[in-house]
Amino acid sequence: MAAASPVSSEMLTAFLLRLADDHLIFGHRLSEWCGHAPMLEEDLAMPNMALDLIGQARSLYHYAGEVEGKGRDEDQLAYVRREREYVNCLMAERQNGDFAHTMLRQFYFAAFMQPLWQAMMTSTDEHLAGIAAKAEKEVAYHIRHAGEWVVRLGDGTEESTRRMKAAVEALAPYVDELFESDGVSRAVAEAGIAPDPSTLRPAFDAIIGPVFAEAGLEWVKTPYGQTGGRQGRHGEALGFLLAELQYMQRTYPGMSW
Amino acid sequence: MAAASPVSSEMLTAFLLRLADDHLIFGHRLSEWCGHAPMLEEDLAMPNMALDLIGQARSLYHYAGEVEGKGRDEDQLAYVRREREYVNCLMAERQNGDFAHTMLRQFYFAAFMQPLWQAMMTSTDEHLAGIAAKAEKEVAYHIRHAGEWVVRLGDGTEESTRRMKAAVEALAPYVDELFESDGVSRAVAEAGIAPDPSTLRPAFDAIIGPVFAEAGLEWVKTPYGQTGGRQGRHGEALGFLLAELQYMQRTYPGMSW
Repeated sequence: MAAASPVSSEMLTAFLLRLADDHLIFGHRLSEWCGHAPMLEEDLAMPNMALDLIGQARSLYHYAGEVEGKGRDEDQLAYVRREREYVNCLMAERQNGDFAHTMLRQFYFAAFMQPLWQAMMTSTDEHLAGIAAKAEKEVAYHIRHAGEWVVRLGDGTEESTRRMKAAVEALAPYVDELFESDGVSRAVAEAGIAPDPSTLRPAFDAIIGPVFAEAGLEWVKTPYGQTGGRQGRHGEALGFLLAELQYMQRTYPGMSW
Repeated sequence: MAAASPVSSEMLTAFLLRLADDHLIFGHRLSEWCGHAPMLEEDLAMPNMALDLIGQARSLYHYAGEVEGKGRDEDQLAYVRREREYVNCLMAERQNGDFAHTMLRQFYFAAFMQPLWQAMMTSTDEHLAGIAAKAEKEVAYHIRHAGEWVVRLGDGTEESTRRMKAAVEALAPYVDELFESDGVSRAVAEAGIAPDPSTLRPAFDAIIGPVFAEAGLEWVKTPYGQTGGRQGRHGEALGFLLAELQYMQRTYPGMSW
């Protein structure tokens, strides 16, 4: 179960928390749609995808707590850290906006995660390889489901096209951050635990490209990109999200069902 | 400072918490507009009114803590009670909706509070009489300011009239609860501390009537009214509000500036 690699436990913990926070925050955002979806089928599909993401977060937090070795369990890592300690990418915390915006965001994240999970299936860290094998199956469905909506709305009515184009515009500044490389990601890559995100861009583009072509959407290149999430510098949206997310554990510390 | 009346400290505390919770929750909702108002003048006016309300809440919580005599200070009463312990009226916790909805709600609350504060200026409880004398001046401005908007929007464009009418409709089920009478309100009234809310309806109607007439609005009588706030039974909206309101004290217990 322990990683047979030369990476330090600090580095591995830092990597695991990024991945876990991405999944928790993306999952929480998606779960906000529960009961508000535009059709019953989506009211099942979106919370189901949210549960996939939160389940993946749970596995990652649990393992991060073991690797860290300071006695923090998955609930403590998920629920009682402070805002600046969360290291999710900024895209995850953005508000849902409309259905088109949510679906495009989910599509982007799945298109980022699929090649990452695929590479991690042969990780030198066997425990992570196991998590990746399960998660890869789930994320393949997310790509299919969200991708279908990107096509249906992008190539739909005048209104749905307008909204999907607005989503592409709105999310453009948050894409590049996904592929950032730094000391943590390089250390983990060198140990054969996970690929450096900077190497995943071609795979991401290969997933996005055909879907955008079918949807009649054009990629928007922004002159600037938002960054800072991996260092705990977040937008206003995360504070409000955490206020809701953490409420139960903050109000009833250590509670369990 | 102490009440020279036969009311029990439990009854007086219960009364003070209702009043304090009304002001805190109304104030918090209004403060949510800060930075989002439709014009700069309102971006000053609404937070100013919110500060009046939160200031009144503070005086009331402070006094409630003294009367209760269990060592709870204003911050503990405002920030670390649980949802079912809040006894604000339901109207206070309703989401802001649009500007028309917010202004009508504020107008209603001010029209309820002005006669209450006026009567309390001669309260047998001298400390409360002092709070009332200050608050009455503030609430007179709230009536004028919010009332002017009710007229301007109600008798405005087609769109503003439509929205103000929708607000009258939406808030109708939450008016009657303001005037509810029970053991607590009767005990406080018998001690000459504050009038029973049930006696304030004519004064409320006398404030609403002329403004509605000028605005061209008609009173909506609902066959049903929402109730339960005074017993701590709240709508979904309060939980989300408390998650934000309490976040700092929950995350950094006992913090101060």
